[in-house]
Amino acid sequence: MTPAMPTPAADAAPPENPPRHLLDLQTMPVDRLRRLLARARDIEGADAETLLGVLRGRFVANLFFEPSTRTRLSFTAAARRLGAEVLDLFAEGSSVTKGETLADTVRTVESIGAEAIIVRHAESGAAARAASASSTAAVLNAGDGRHEHPTQGLLDTLIIAEAFDRLDGFDLSGLRLGVVGDLAHSRVARSDVAAWSALGAAVVAVGPEGLAPTPFETLGCMVGHDLDAVLPTLDAVQMLRVQTERGAEVGSTREYTARFGLDDDRAGRLKPGAVILHPGPMNRGVEISSRVADSQRCLARRQVAAGVPIRMAALADALAMDPAERSG
Amino acid sequence: MTPAMPTPAADAAPPENPPRHLLDLQTMPVDRLRRLLARARDIEGADAETLLGVLRGRFVANLFFEPSTRTRLSFTAAARRLGAEVLDLFAEGSSVTKGETLADTVRTVESIGAEAIIVRHAESGAAARAASASSTAAVLNAGDGRHEHPTQGLLDTLIIAEAFDRLDGFDLSGLRLGVVGDLAHSRVARSDVAAWSALGAAVVAVGPEGLAPTPFETLGCMVGHDLDAVLPTLDAVQMLRVQTERGAEVGSTREYTARFGLDDDRAGRLKPGAVILHPGPMNRGVEISSRVADSQRCLARRQVAAGVPIRMAALADALAMDPAERSG
Amino acid sequence: MTPAMPTPAADAAPPENPPRHLLDLQTMPVDRLRRLLARARDIEGADAETLLGVLRGRFVANLFFEPSTRTRLSFTAAARRLGAEVLDLFAEGSSVTKGETLADTVRTVESIGAEAIIVRHAESGAAARAASASSTAAVLNAGDGRHEHPTQGLLDTLIIAEAFDRLDGFDLSGLRLGVVGDLAHSRVARSDVAAWSALGAAVVAVGPEGLAPTPFETLGCMVGHDLDAVLPTLDAVQMLRVQTERGAEVGSTREYTARFGLDDDRAGRLKPGAVILHPGPMNRGVEISSRVADSQRCLARRQVAAGVPIRMAALADALAMDPAERSG
Repeated sequence: MTPAMPTPAADAAPPENPPRHLLDLQTMPVDRLRRLLARARDIEGADAETLLGVLRGRFVANLFFEPSTRTRLSFTAAARRLGAEVLDLFAEGSSVTKGETLADTVRTVESIGAEAIIVRHAESGAAARAASASSTAAVLNAGDGRHEHPTQGLLDTLIIAEAFDRLDGFDLSGLRLGVVGDLAHSRVARSDVAAWSALGAAVVAVGPEGLAPTPFETLGCMVGHDLDAVLPTLDAVQMLRVQTERGAEVGSTREYTARFGLDDDRAGRLKPGAVILHPGPMNRGVEISSRVADSQRCLARRQVAAGVPIRMAALADALAMDPAERSG
Repeated sequence: MTPAMPTPAADAAPPENPPRHLLDLQTMPVDRLRRLLARARDIEGADAETLLGVLRGRFVANLFFEPSTRTRLSFTAAARRLGAEVLDLFAEGSSVTKGETLADTVRTVESIGAEAIIVRHAESGAAARAASASSTAAVLNAGDGRHEHPTQGLLDTLIIAEAFDRLDGFDLSGLRLGVVGDLAHSRVARSDVAAWSALGAAVVAVGPEGLAPTPFETLGCMVGHDLDAVLPTLDAVQMLRVQTERGAEVGSTREYTARFGLDDDRAGRLKPGAVILHPGPMNRGVEISSRVADSQRCLARRQVAAGVPIRMAALADALAMDPAERSG
Repeated sequence: MTPAMPTPAADAAPPENPPRHLLDLQTMPVDRLRRLLARARDIEGADAETLLGVLRGRFVANLFFEPSTRTRLSFTAAARRLGAEVLDLFAEGSSVTKGETLADTVRTVESIGAEAIIVRHAESGAAARAASASSTAAVLNAGDGRHEHPTQGLLDTLIIAEAFDRLDGFDLSGLRLGVVGDLAHSRVARSDVAAWSALGAAVVAVGPEGLAPTPFETLGCMVGHDLDAVLPTLDAVQMLRVQTERGAEVGSTREYTARFGLDDDRAGRLKPGAVILHPGPMNRGVEISSRVADSQRCLARRQVAAGVPIRMAALADALAMDPAERSG
């Protein structure tokens, strides 16, 4: 007989199995990166009924302090496909507006029974702060400020591995991959660059001078400002969204588009076989033209679809012991 | 073994089974109308446990760009009674506010795995636009501007068929049915008139001169402006809500109520056996008096209850092959 | 074969089994109080899979007219652990904003199929009004204005019974329990005092003169204004939240904290073995210091955790016949 209620962790002793957070890709060991990708790949081919048993009756919570559609729905779909229950906490209409700290909110959600807490927050580092507050629940970063968006980085990597037949081992060496746009504000760029570099790709980040700070080089990628020079050398290019709502100072949109937008003309100069990524939501006519967005080499819809198995893998990794690991 | 993840539709070839949208009743073949009603009737008597298997593990999405209580909850209850999972996307706090187009939002929700997308939108024709954007998901119109609200029309029809013993075949001939109120703004009126006319009833639409445009006659109904002249001839009357929030120009409420409100006095002049409908939410004291609303001949609560099997029928029709159709 | 749809209650005859509302603890018979607590205690040790069958496929609705995190999520978790479906209605974006009355909203949710309706509302007495409108659904008060918050009172009682080994019979006699703070605005205080007094404890309510009205004495407790005089006599103290958002007139926060805040110094003067409660969300540094909040004798997290089995007991009590009662 399994007791129905979680027993609170002892305050004093450190837990035997510390929670398996997913906070960033920059510090993630490359074997964990590969394991998550392989698990997502395997989930895509797995039997739906079997998957429903993986987290049956267990609770995850969406703790979203910023608006989001695709990420929240994607995590929700992932949880439900694994049989987990989802608690939705929106910052508006919550005790957050009553002055409760992030740490107390995390502890509350954990005490209600959530074993995984998916956090989106406008502040860089918020996911790590949530993880510090948690005693047993795993925190999954669904985007924190300008820091990282690790499940987006993972799904982008899965897509690239799929497009270039690297699904065995996820070795990206020999590929030249680009991220283009508002780098300074982009948590997506940080996660992409970290994962792609770790798996052996050559990565180039291209953006406006003011928006592509040198620290990006420390992530292991080259930084450029001339898209037209870089584009013909790339096997895949991620066109970042201009995040006007996050205060991007891109100057005029028209100027931005002229320099960094992927229009029909530029798309025509891509290498044969090169693919285009976009994390969405798209500003059609700004960072990507509508025709390019709807072309066969743009994998934006496949990215959204791949988000579900990636998040299933992340949740299963956090909450369900993998048979391979159990024996290991 | 069923693969867990939806595979994206091929871009080029048209799908073998195009999605079965539910956009309006005006263009719906009368045999589909009858089939949906019969299915809802059968569902009302069906075994709860059996129904839970009909759409088990499949995903539907609520895509609501306008506030709603009863319709969203009714679709949610319908989906859950069939075992389906529900993804709730609210326009506020979504990528809609980040400038994403309706088409891209539909494709995103579809890529996350929704096989049916329930759309409510302030613009007439939005459901059809959503349907054009979808490649595999069925779009169900939950009210689009002044155009239609087809599941409301269906449930109103089920109620009338039930009240007048027409549940076999749903032939409404010989009945005289009225819709009263703010016709110009009413998607409910359009759906009601379309369904009732198609099933053989004589339909009269009654409203203020400025609000009851002649195009209504093209839907196959008479248009009048004198409620007191029409009321004693009706077997059923749907009292439309005065939609002040949608910008109805009904003049003064007092004047509107005097001419078109169903008060105790007017209700007393209805035919014996005549029934009163209201789609809700009610403005008590405006289009209907509180005493009439709470009387036995007002079927408003039964309308709400019937919404669930109607929406179950609509979802099952969109997503689950009917045995009869499979063999046909 | 169980019919899938609820049949509407007959309008005329009173129902054989009237709905089992949970509106307050002040008028609750003490044997029902004990039964709810015992059921929650038993649920904490019960088998998770068995519990999932208790309300399988039945619907409850969250009808929240005020923002809340913990209470809504706690009820949701409780419902899902019993296998029930949850419909979430938020006041914003609902027909409430279209002028529908509370009674009509309750009837709508009931007609959609909800058998229990969890109501939170800013007005005292709103839960009772909702209960009057319901014909078959049980109304569970999740906090109504300054009136009561009965499931909070129950969970606080469970925690105290647990801390002082009174889980058999829930007899609190011999214990001296305090509630401290903004009594006039606190529905939590009213529910706590009612339950603790009914179970035999000596209860003291301590708060500012203007905020601790004499009517509290009618609930069967003493009223004081000098925390330092009362504190060393208590076995447990509930530190009420300063509800600035509800218009508390506590004067300056600094002054309030000086007189009624539980800081390290005051906590040091508690009896050995005394415990501290807080209903959350906490204003750290106002009614409780951060160090006291995080100390082992503060049971705030355990309170949150106990909310789930308490609400499971409340839902099961409302909707699932207890074997003991059936035979009785």
